[in-house]
Amino acid sequence: MTPVKIGLLGLGTVGGGTVTVLTRNAAEIARRAGRGIRIVHAAAREYDPAAIAGLDQIDHIGQDAFAVVDDPEVAIVIELIGGYSPARELVLRAIANGKHVVTANKALIAMHGNEIFAAAQERGVMVAFEAAVAGGVPIIKALREGLAGNHIEWVAGIINGTGNFILTEMRDKGRDFADVLAEAQALGYAEADPTFDVEGIDAAHKLTILAAIAFGIPLQFDKTFTEGISRIEAQDVAFAEELGYRIKHLGIARRVSAGIEMRVHPTLIPHRRLIANVDGVMNAVLVKGDAVGPTLYYGAGAGSLPTASAVVADVVDVVRALTTDPNNRVPHLAFQPSELADTPVLPMSEIETAYYLRLSARDKPGVMAQVAGILGDLGISIEAIKQKEPGEGDTHVPLIMLTHRVREGLMDEAIARIEALDAVSGDVVRIRMETLAG
Amino acid sequence: MTPVKIGLLGLGTVGGGTVTVLTRNAAEIARRAGRGIRIVHAAAREYDPAAIAGLDQIDHIGQDAFAVVDDPEVAIVIELIGGYSPARELVLRAIANGKHVVTANKALIAMHGNEIFAAAQERGVMVAFEAAVAGGVPIIKALREGLAGNHIEWVAGIINGTGNFILTEMRDKGRDFADVLAEAQALGYAEADPTFDVEGIDAAHKLTILAAIAFGIPLQFDKTFTEGISRIEAQDVAFAEELGYRIKHLGIARRVSAGIEMRVHPTLIPHRRLIANVDGVMNAVLVKGDAVGPTLYYGAGAGSLPTASAVVADVVDVVRALTTDPNNRVPHLAFQPSELADTPVLPMSEIETAYYLRLSARDKPGVMAQVAGILGDLGISIEAIKQKEPGEGDTHVPLIMLTHRVREGLMDEAIARIEALDAVSGDVVRIRMETLAG
Repeated sequence: MTPVKIGLLGLGTVGGGTVTVLTRNAAEIARRAGRGIRIVHAAAREYDPAAIAGLDQIDHIGQDAFAVVDDPEVAIVIELIGGYSPARELVLRAIANGKHVVTANKALIAMHGNEIFAAAQERGVMVAFEAAVAGGVPIIKALREGLAGNHIEWVAGIINGTGNFILTEMRDKGRDFADVLAEAQALGYAEADPTFDVEGIDAAHKLTILAAIAFGIPLQFDKTFTEGISRIEAQDVAFAEELGYRIKHLGIARRVSAGIEMRVHPTLIPHRRLIANVDGVMNAVLVKGDAVGPTLYYGAGAGSLPTASAVVADVVDVVRALTTDPNNRVPHLAFQPSELADTPVLPMSEIETAYYLRLSARDKPGVMAQVAGILGDLGISIEAIKQKEPGEGDTHVPLIMLTHRVREGLMDEAIARIEALDAVSGDVVRIRMETLAG
Repeated sequence: MTPVKIGLLGLGTVGGGTVTVLTRNAAEIARRAGRGIRIVHAAAREYDPAAIAGLDQIDHIGQDAFAVVDDPEVAIVIELIGGYSPARELVLRAIANGKHVVTANKALIAMHGNEIFAAAQERGVMVAFEAAVAGGVPIIKALREGLAGNHIEWVAGIINGTGNFILTEMRDKGRDFADVLAEAQALGYAEADPTFDVEGIDAAHKLTILAAIAFGIPLQFDKTFTEGISRIEAQDVAFAEELGYRIKHLGIARRVSAGIEMRVHPTLIPHRRLIANVDGVMNAVLVKGDAVGPTLYYGAGAGSLPTASAVVADVVDVVRALTTDPNNRVPHLAFQPSELADTPVLPMSEIETAYYLRLSARDKPGVMAQVAGILGDLGISIEAIKQKEPGEGDTHVPLIMLTHRVREGLMDEAIARIEALDAVSGDVVRIRMETLAG
């Protein structure tokens, strides 16, 4: 059988890795796929030829990405440019040209996936995006196919390696956020502008995709609540540890009777949970299905070769499905396009979770009772309360509380009342808390 | 579209769970698969109608399994009888009748898979067996499809829940093997005859399957080295813990330059590894690919609904591939049948690993030097050596050593020489040790 001909957009970190994997493992991949896979046309504005093994195997490398998506020889376009534009235009044109698309672009899928999938469905082509979530971990495949018999109850994932590296370092070494961020930037784990990673936007893109696939809903990035890790303090990491918890930056999607929760935020989780022990730049996604119970998928969430691993797996999948009746292929969002649900996404005030609260209380008797009184009046149960010893000369001491599950709207009110107390200084620190129990 | 018609063999734990999942989640499964999936004919010698939700949805339940595989209405046969015979005959006849097969039967696949897959290939039908390894965890799919771009280097898995439950209890409570086994039997985690689980045969079946898929070799159960956990003592669990390790019963398949290692045995692994923290009846498989690095898949490895989750996912996969050109389907053993390799499986004497050794040494000076001398003469490096304090009146004390990696054949010789020392009493306990480093 003749090799399948690939067009490649982008020769950066992931593009270069994809060239390397496709050429280095060409024989083994062909033994699996039943036919060869060859990049015939690539485009990149600039790239480092010396840094990419296998580049000499590509027939033609140019600068014009549109020439690749218009190349009649190309059957599958791999989009590894990233960003919204011109990625969106290129992908839509590839689809219009009847080409299948493989992409690692989470921002594109989270923001424009509904439009892109509709166009692909219409044209009878596939758009595969395993590499968009958790890098090399085949989580899209697991959710969309491996757990196809389940009613998915919730998904909780460490889906941003930079954030996890920072939190791991803060815990292991007791260091501050800013300090670790600077190190992460020096190591190349964090961008010069780290906003996308540390403010949770990257994780929110990925969570949006996971939620759509898990629950059969359209992609709704604008409805994903997003809170980053930049305000996590070393003392909160330490207090959490003392209480038997770890702080992880999680993307959580949960189906409850009123609708669907989609939220990205720092989260206290019991330190004995497997996912609490996922450290450094690694990613992991925990999925709870009604039949299978909890399952977890772990691996490198970024990087050249790990992400390329997912890209190549998608290419092999597309090659295998080339002869399939389009109606029998795995649907883009796991559910048949006509079967997506309009289940409402809950506003944050309506979600339910437990909380870690830290406040700075004047060091005098009665403050704890005042705070506990406010929570009690609102029907919020306290699981634990802890007042730290004052240091010499301290007028205020940290007061830490863990609450049981309560509606966020009610907690907002409790926090407003607590902050209004004379004996409490500054803002109340609130970190959500999940047991992630099977 | 008309529903796909299923024939079901067996209404035991997994059969009952499959009925329950297929009926309870029927609407959601159809939203994914694009068409309904309906059991039209089931056979079981005996079953408990009251224990199985959804049984009333089956058109016909009889006692004759061959009537199911011969039923012209049935498109896909689900085999959940277990064991070698008549499962083999039933599966082969279903194939001969042009029906696709889904099975959870690891013994059948490990022993007769080569024959079954050849017959299926010849007839152009699919045999799916996700449920045969690690229950509900979609590890077959991950290895066969999700990591299709990788050269797999090794696989290491906790793939027997009973064994993992026993080792977890031994560690957590300091209890003896026999004592915990009795509890596992009372809880229903272990069979009345626990041989398959505690002697590693069940794990060896599963490892045989994983190795074939990872490396593109035929199934070779007879070449899998198998050592159970029944000789693990509470003191070894405790000593391992002191040294920073945990004992897990692992199935390990590794590709080295000389060939392939396939082995199931208790293994010391660093306690900080994620897989070292997989406790109780849970399963996990760690896979190292050259591109993706280490990835881990975790979940329930047995039980009614978790195993049914994998069975149903396979059914959905088969339904989706019904219209696919048979040559483009995912090959049974991940690689095209014509592309399987005859890479030799190494005899155990040729494998390389590190070791934990415990021996009972006379409590007098010089014994440690004698033992270290034997290892040194054979070129075996010692990583750590530890002599326990004697109790009052003890003539012998435990001497524990960790070695660096060495060929097993050499270690056999070292152990024989150590056991021949006058100052050493009884057998040397040997537990293999792996870092499982990425």
